[in-house]
Amino acid sequence: MLIVMQKSATEEQIAAVAEQIISLGMRAEVLPGSLRTAIGVMGNTGYVDADQVLLMPGVKEIIHVSKPYKLVSREWRPEDTVVRVGRTEIGGDRPFAVIAGPCSVESEEQALSCAREVKRLGAALFRGGIFKPRTTPYAFRGLGEAGAGILNQVRGSVGLPVVTEVMHVSNLDLVASCADMLQIGTRNMQNCDLLLEAAKTGMPILLKRGMSALLEEFLLAAEYILDAGNGNVVLCERGIRTFETSTRNTLDLNSVALARELSHLPVIVDPSHGTGRASLVKPLSLAARAAGAVGVMVEVHPEPQKALSDGQQSLDFAGFAELAAALSL
Amino acid sequence: MLIVMQKSATEEQIAAVAEQIISLGMRAEVLPGSLRTAIGVMGNTGYVDADQVLLMPGVKEIIHVSKPYKLVSREWRPEDTVVRVGRTEIGGDRPFAVIAGPCSVESEEQALSCAREVKRLGAALFRGGIFKPRTTPYAFRGLGEAGAGILNQVRGSVGLPVVTEVMHVSNLDLVASCADMLQIGTRNMQNCDLLLEAAKTGMPILLKRGMSALLEEFLLAAEYILDAGNGNVVLCERGIRTFETSTRNTLDLNSVALARELSHLPVIVDPSHGTGRASLVKPLSLAARAAGAVGVMVEVHPEPQKALSDGQQSLDFAGFAELAAALSL
Amino acid sequence: MLIVMQKSATEEQIAAVAEQIISLGMRAEVLPGSLRTAIGVMGNTGYVDADQVLLMPGVKEIIHVSKPYKLVSREWRPEDTVVRVGRTEIGGDRPFAVIAGPCSVESEEQALSCAREVKRLGAALFRGGIFKPRTTPYAFRGLGEAGAGILNQVRGSVGLPVVTEVMHVSNLDLVASCADMLQIGTRNMQNCDLLLEAAKTGMPILLKRGMSALLEEFLLAAEYILDAGNGNVVLCERGIRTFETSTRNTLDLNSVALARELSHLPVIVDPSHGTGRASLVKPLSLAARAAGAVGVMVEVHPEPQKALSDGQQSLDFAGFAELAAALSL
Amino acid sequence: MLIVMQKSATEEQIAAVAEQIISLGMRAEVLPGSLRTAIGVMGNTGYVDADQVLLMPGVKEIIHVSKPYKLVSREWRPEDTVVRVGRTEIGGDRPFAVIAGPCSVESEEQALSCAREVKRLGAALFRGGIFKPRTTPYAFRGLGEAGAGILNQVRGSVGLPVVTEVMHVSNLDLVASCADMLQIGTRNMQNCDLLLEAAKTGMPILLKRGMSALLEEFLLAAEYILDAGNGNVVLCERGIRTFETSTRNTLDLNSVALARELSHLPVIVDPSHGTGRASLVKPLSLAARAAGAVGVMVEVHPEPQKALSDGQQSLDFAGFAELAAALSL
Repeated sequence: MLIVMQKSATEEQIAAVAEQIISLGMRAEVLPGSLRTAIGVMGNTGYVDADQVLLMPGVKEIIHVSKPYKLVSREWRPEDTVVRVGRTEIGGDRPFAVIAGPCSVESEEQALSCAREVKRLGAALFRGGIFKPRTTPYAFRGLGEAGAGILNQVRGSVGLPVVTEVMHVSNLDLVASCADMLQIGTRNMQNCDLLLEAAKTGMPILLKRGMSALLEEFLLAAEYILDAGNGNVVLCERGIRTFETSTRNTLDLNSVALARELSHLPVIVDPSHGTGRASLVKPLSLAARAAGAVGVMVEVHPEPQKALSDGQQSLDFAGFAELAAALSL
Repeated sequence: MLIVMQKSATEEQIAAVAEQIISLGMRAEVLPGSLRTAIGVMGNTGYVDADQVLLMPGVKEIIHVSKPYKLVSREWRPEDTVVRVGRTEIGGDRPFAVIAGPCSVESEEQALSCAREVKRLGAALFRGGIFKPRTTPYAFRGLGEAGAGILNQVRGSVGLPVVTEVMHVSNLDLVASCADMLQIGTRNMQNCDLLLEAAKTGMPILLKRGMSALLEEFLLAAEYILDAGNGNVVLCERGIRTFETSTRNTLDLNSVALARELSHLPVIVDPSHGTGRASLVKPLSLAARAAGAVGVMVEVHPEPQKALSDGQQSLDFAGFAELAAALSL
Repeated sequence: MLIVMQKSATEEQIAAVAEQIISLGMRAEVLPGSLRTAIGVMGNTGYVDADQVLLMPGVKEIIHVSKPYKLVSREWRPEDTVVRVGRTEIGGDRPFAVIAGPCSVESEEQALSCAREVKRLGAALFRGGIFKPRTTPYAFRGLGEAGAGILNQVRGSVGLPVVTEVMHVSNLDLVASCADMLQIGTRNMQNCDLLLEAAKTGMPILLKRGMSALLEEFLLAAEYILDAGNGNVVLCERGIRTFETSTRNTLDLNSVALARELSHLPVIVDPSHGTGRASLVKPLSLAARAAGAVGVMVEVHPEPQKALSDGQQSLDFAGFAELAAALSL
Repeated sequence: MLIVMQKSATEEQIAAVAEQIISLGMRAEVLPGSLRTAIGVMGNTGYVDADQVLLMPGVKEIIHVSKPYKLVSREWRPEDTVVRVGRTEIGGDRPFAVIAGPCSVESEEQALSCAREVKRLGAALFRGGIFKPRTTPYAFRGLGEAGAGILNQVRGSVGLPVVTEVMHVSNLDLVASCADMLQIGTRNMQNCDLLLEAAKTGMPILLKRGMSALLEEFLLAAEYILDAGNGNVVLCERGIRTFETSTRNTLDLNSVALARELSHLPVIVDPSHGTGRASLVKPLSLAARAAGAVGVMVEVHPEPQKALSDGQQSLDFAGFAELAAALSL
């Protein structure tokens, strides 16, 4: 941490800040410059939350040097993490992993026909929500418990591992009973309790980036899970909220390539939410792979025009076949 | 809803879309233009989620006309809602309401001294978190249950009503036992289950805007609570996330003035989180009032330099006295 | 400037970076920490653009400490600058300055009637564009030279000083001949040549913030003008572009209060562009004043419904009278 | 255009709005809904700027249906435009075009050695700025006229066509004398005069997206050029400004894929500015191609650590060779 003093800071003010740092158990090195003095804070073994020093007389600015995460960083663990979900492995040099299925599980017929088709075309996992977060109270919110049975049929009769979203700690047992991987959704990326309880199951976790989360905050959310003893985390970029309105979100592939530098965790991309338009799913899936993503998660529906949610961004079977071919699954 | 067809759309495509709309129980009116044809969708009594029509051949774009909220709108209820919390009333022509207290309850001494001081200076409610959402797993996360007893001392011995954040359905009973008003935080604005369960308590609710929520989404989150039968909602603008980094967030006072036009609910402002700098709390509090806010919520701490969270944006007692004087409390 | 080395950086890499800094004429101080080493760069008398050091082996990150501006800062000049335009003074403890007039000068009749009315109601300056930047090639782009004569009538017969936008160096003489203050618009905030040529006229300059400019970049643009020897600069916050679409821009009043801390230059606000809705102009004007702005610039039109540009955000005479009363002009 | 009336709008108000539309030369169709009435505006042959109707009593909202551009749209011209620059063709099914060279031309030696190397490795065009827009007045601003001679040596002795930025109408002749293609930079995307004057040269134009421009605004800027009779426009996505700070900009590959749907113009990508980090240039170049871009523009410097501008995002020769190999040039 570096504390920048005002040009007008007095010797006394500088000394007082240094003492405050020392009283917090760290070392302070005063660095006089030609314009102003800075104070280097050393001896801390991790991130220091001492922003309140900003209020001391003569202090102009606080600059953090150490990143606040550790376990997720490539400095901590240089080699790629590979996450195993059922028989599938995600990350490292394993085959590009395609996760496919409907936004919501709507019926046995819809889910099973979809699961069979995406499996036939090379998908490695099935996705399908049984609890749906919705912006308005007047929209479809998922089958709930009835959907759990359907997901277990996908696992059993179709033979695809399943990832599905857990929205609340109270649903954790139910969701864990019908899934091979737990999804933490964009709205819950910073829901610490959910992160911790999900981590404790020991199951692999698909963590989606919050729609306005900095890459650093995204990595910190994953740090919660690793810190709780569960290293089976797959990061999922799903688009961020920007001023651009011609697409539902702005898919941030910069962050995919950068996350691969900063972290050892596998990164996948959700081009369905990331674009909000079915016609953009194929080009952005290819772009995600080229940028370094180790997989994609795409929404597929037997009849997107009749989907109860996210139809406009779902591929039909022909569209998914085209994507699978383009990816040489 | 308006469906815009492509210039090249055929008669058959137009007819197919119109039929699809009719099959969904609505009326369709074909509107030929000089460049392209549009189809007006009528007869729906609320928001229509038919975006999947976008996938039909010949369709270019979907435009929503009805706003997806109803109960929170001023069209539905023209007069200002006034929310009562303990002896305090917020909204309409009631006195400007100042909610003050520390970010986190850290000790009995800290909370009670702070509560006495802000009460003496004119605050109407006490704030203080006992469960804190934090970005990193390595930061202070609140006193939890021990804090509940302290909040009840604030209510009892000091005699100030209390608002505090509830982060999970599982904490609802505990939080309700030590508060006069429940706060739903920015990270939980779209946590539907929490909104519904909090609504059912019948207690007044302080709903903070999500840091990347559109004003429309903010009003929809309030709609969840009203739709569950609880009309005692106060909206709180707390800054949005933008490209500007010189302040922690960008306080959006446009949305305060516009929310007053669009909705009958009272709107307050949190300039502490909205700016992230203690020195900006006074000018932005005054600005919030001028823009139409009916109150502010500010962080106050006996010794901000030693605060366990948010010290850099907390007022000390002298700073709060100055604010109170500026607001003529 | 602080150079942060990777955890794995070798002694040789650290030494090489230090030498590179010294070869650039600055001092380097190596600061070993418990996690990694940093190198403090000192002896520079201003902002150092040495970001390319980032490419040297072992370097993790570059952190700038000195702000890249100087002349505009309050550290450089503690007392408020007051800018004189004709008989009006803007800034310091001078009366709150209202600049009013149509978006575009459309006719002699329109401009003069508007100028007379806003003068009668207390406006200190007249605004009115004769060259208009427009998003589409198919929109009205201003009267050009014909408008210059009309502005001179406003100055002469009505007796109000005039501020109007100069869009190109080639128009500078024409605009200077009919104005008391030059406006640099949001799209030109970083047009260095225009900033320098406008500065050389010695005329007072109204500099609007770029719609996606950081506050630091805004101050740097003003630094160009001061560095060219012209200190008569008024800063104008006019809203920034964010994800929120319910208003045309997001008025950033945080930056107004913060600019007053960081700089000695006067700051005014344009609530017409800042909100894009006539109904929000009054509340946000009051909020701007409360946040520390020393004036506002508002669009006024005799018949907003017939305006050739920006009608939806223009006040009619009754609306301006109401604003003037609210501001006690 | 669709005009949405308030729920409480009277018959008289609805009739008045319809009459106003008719008086502007268009047709109005009143569309009563179950909640409120809308008025469809038809008969216009292009974009209608009638937003001021918003001010009429009873009007709630204006919704635009027609896009405001025409000549750049794929509806207007379905087949891909191919732009010829010297011997190179960009767009359609032509080979992927790599434009490479330093941010700034710094010396004859630097420019020529760089040009020879990138030509040898397969680049189709040379880039190099002789006028540089800079954020601060204290940074290097280009060689100016001296640089023009160097660019002509690149064209003559090295034999690579050149693209370079024109920043002002007054530099147009000079820049045109040493370039095969004119670049309009991100800060000038909406500089109408420059767009028009550049268009009139008949030279091919590389138009960079404004850092906060909507895709629609980007297409409208190109429309200015086509409307002036010059169809040789290549669009260049170069990253947009968002809340994410770990990369210099957020490269928006969604918009690349969508621009290919909406427009017939070729789209290339600038991953150097789009990411701001040399290490991300290769993965994002590959991603750009996968998303549908027909080329990339990358910064290459013989010694990036000594570059006078943008060193941190420039490839050295080895880095460019690696990129060229990855793209199979």
